[in-house]
Amino acid sequence: MAGKSGIIFIGSKPPMSYVLAIITSLSGSDAEEVTLKARGRAISTAVDAAEITRRRFIKDLKISKIAIGTEEMPAREGENRARMVSTMEITLTKK
Amino acid sequence: MAGKSGIIFIGSKPPMSYVLAIITSLSGSDAEEVTLKARGRAISTAVDAAEITRRRFIKDLKISKIAIGTEEMPAREGENRARMVSTMEITLTKK
Repeated sequence: MAGKSGIIFIGSKPPMSYVLAIITSLSGSDAEEVTLKARGRAISTAVDAAEITRRRFIKDLKISKIAIGTEEMPAREGENRARMVSTMEITLTKK
Repeated sequence: MAGKSGIIFIGSKPPMSYVLAIITSLSGSDAEEVTLKARGRAISTAVDAAEITRRRFIKDLKISKIAIGTEEMPAREGENRARMVSTMEITLTKK
């Protein structure tokens, strides 16, 4: 693949913030795909952002890959063991 | 496919409730696959349930399909237009 590929980390902002980031990332002339990465509760925000972008803004955007997984997070202060957290990656590709 | 295929709707219960439902659904002799369906905030619970089942309980479980989409929900009382809500389906298959 010749085009550039970007990564957007999804956090706790409203979905529209990430929609703008996706559109910006895909607006360069050689920008072909962007991957959204999310953990825990932000997973539903990632799906929202992907769906809003596809439905309302970039109609020819394709979901080329969806993957889920588990990551170990270091124990926070006061906890005595690591926590497992679910992860999700959604790759969006311009045709 | 000869085996039975079940559907589990993911709601607002803790992920372990759905893990138990998945294990039960796959424990029949001809039960081969189960599909988790979730909307909105429950999407991250669906990923949690799938990952916990795969990591801790049924090691040979494969994620055979993941799909995301959008559904129109009828307007609630006091609202004057339909809301769009993100959806996700995860299909788990026993090898």
